Amino acid sequence: MIRTLEWTSQGVRFIDQTRLPMEEVFVTCGTYQEVATAIRDMIVRGAPAIGVAAAMGIALGVKHSSAPDIATLRTEFGQICRTMGETRPTAVNLFWAIRRMQQTFEVAAPQGVHQVKINLVEEAQKMLVEDIAANEAMGRHGATLMPASGGVLTHCNAGALATCGYGTALGVIRSAISSGKKLHVFADETRPFLQGSRLTAWELMKDGIQTTLIADNMAGAMMRQGKIKAVIVGADRIAANGDVANKIGTYSVAVLAKEHGIPFYVAAPWSTVDMNMPDGEGIPIEQRSAREVTHHAGKQVAPDGVLVENPAFDVTPNKYVAAIVTERGIAKSPFADSLRELAQAVPDLAGTRR
Amino acid sequence: MIRTLEWTSQGVRFIDQTRLPMEEVFVTCGTYQEVATAIRDMIVRGAPAIGVAAAMGIALGVKHSSAPDIATLRTEFGQICRTMGETRPTAVNLFWAIRRMQQTFEVAAPQGVHQVKINLVEEAQKMLVEDIAANEAMGRHGATLMPASGGVLTHCNAGALATCGYGTALGVIRSAISSGKKLHVFADETRPFLQGSRLTAWELMKDGIQTTLIADNMAGAMMRQGKIKAVIVGADRIAANGDVANKIGTYSVAVLAKEHGIPFYVAAPWSTVDMNMPDGEGIPIEQRSAREVTHHAGKQVAPDGVLVENPAFDVTPNKYVAAIVTERGIAKSPFADSLRELAQAVPDLAGTRR
Repeated sequence: MIRTLEWTSQGVRFIDQTRLPMEEVFVTCGTYQEVATAIRDMIVRGAPAIGVAAAMGIALGVKHSSAPDIATLRTEFGQICRTMGETRPTAVNLFWAIRRMQQTFEVAAPQGVHQVKINLVEEAQKMLVEDIAANEAMGRHGATLMPASGGVLTHCNAGALATCGYGTALGVIRSAISSGKKLHVFADETRPFLQGSRLTAWELMKDGIQTTLIADNMAGAMMRQGKIKAVIVGADRIAANGDVANKIGTYSVAVLAKEHGIPFYVAAPWSTVDMNMPDGEGIPIEQRSAREVTHHAGKQVAPDGVLVENPAFDVTPNKYVAAIVTERGIAKSPFADSLRELAQAVPDLAGTRR
Repeated sequence: MIRTLEWTSQGVRFIDQTRLPMEEVFVTCGTYQEVATAIRDMIVRGAPAIGVAAAMGIALGVKHSSAPDIATLRTEFGQICRTMGETRPTAVNLFWAIRRMQQTFEVAAPQGVHQVKINLVEEAQKMLVEDIAANEAMGRHGATLMPASGGVLTHCNAGALATCGYGTALGVIRSAISSGKKLHVFADETRPFLQGSRLTAWELMKDGIQTTLIADNMAGAMMRQGKIKAVIVGADRIAANGDVANKIGTYSVAVLAKEHGIPFYVAAPWSTVDMNMPDGEGIPIEQRSAREVTHHAGKQVAPDGVLVENPAFDVTPNKYVAAIVTERGIAKSPFADSLRELAQAVPDLAGTRR
């Protein structure tokens, strides 16, 4: 069992994802600012994990506050939430988590500072448990979509490391394999940050799941050779019409899948669905440092001064998406309708009800 | 002027492409075996450059022979040609160059060992001159296909460094810019060997051509944002029906271009066209070391023991190709007809006639 993040008495403990797969190092953030830095520097990454990490960071900041009254605490709390909200713009789970902590704050506020602290710490820990339960539910729903055997391509890491455990896309793969399907995973290395080679390959091999690593530009050739039966990826934000923002390169994979008649699936918790975002055009796309592209393992590989584009995400229009797997069930086209229906649904979490 | 390869009195001199862009180091191969190693290790790469390098390697091997008679020299020559032919299987220019040297050998053979040596050395040098002239002719033909302004995407390096100078795809871009077109090049970094970031960006920046480097998986997003008006790439082998083998990832770019209604062009000398290969299915695809994928700049980035696919090339079916630019003119669909016509054509080389 991979512990991506954990609440401890010393603070929030993360496996340092920048040092995998060669080193399994854990870091403990003792302040909310350190948690914000861990999110920004991608020590923890993946939309669901970012959401829970932010909630834990907020809980940590409030827990350490010496504010004597609710009014003072509310001011500090606002600052803490703003700091968290400024870490990464695309994953909507971050803002979902902040809103949920804000609601928790206001519900407990009449009972005073001490109770707010208790409730925020509890809420953050509850979100971790719920995230794993949501992933397991996604796994049960999504396993039915997987082929009985053959290659399944994934991009980036939508696994245990992108969540609090089990994973979204990789959770579906894990569940399908548990149910007896004979899947072989093809993992795109996922430039520039290499979540595929460093994280997905690592966690799947830990589970004994057959994994073949490829460079991103090989996906088309693998599809044309008939090696890929389905594609499944995670998401950082899903618009109300089913457009999907996910790791850069996802859109290319979706187009290739369509060209080869291969179903392209997305697995994400309901917290990734942004019903206030009508379509993908409005989703803010984070641009990251040029250095991620011009340097490999710290070594410069491009000429000085070259221009670089480094969007961390792209948007896949809903027409490329065969189904969106959530803990509430599976949405299919037309997504505006199916997602609206799921928005009303009771989450199908084994043993967890919000 | 970039001197990719040169015949010198000491042997064949290459710019070491494994050390660009951070170091401009030249290596001189004094024996044909060293030339073969330079080709295999990609100190020199690019189908046209490989062809001429092999010819120079053969000339070098024969020049150094102490064979007393033609029969003995012919045996040695056969061994030299076999060594060259075993370096890399996909680029047909290698086999074209070997065949041309074999013909030169047989034509000169009646005049004795000394004349064979003289003619082979001359023929190899003539091939270098012809290659540059062919690239300039391709540039003139292909420039007409380029948009008046905007972004042009290229994959891998089909530039001066892939040839004896000027380049095939990059030659077309250079020619279009010389003729007043305002092009901005998007260069795929081209994993795993990074010919895009290391070589294409380097040589275009040397020429003052605006270049934006992207990871391979960003091409789709750039197209969807309207930043790419055309795609142009080189080729390692073109079948008689217009199917194109080129650097891995080319096929994905071609599919993406089709999806976005962007023309996908191929520029290659006639020596890259294999009229004996009916379609792309029969083209041998070189598999290279897993280490190219699992290690970045010498540092391991994937877990021990992960399976890896590392095909160096893929095949783009002719239906994705808008035009093939050669020194003999431009071929368009149906390629079986247009390439058959060009096969009969007199090459349109300024100042060079075979």
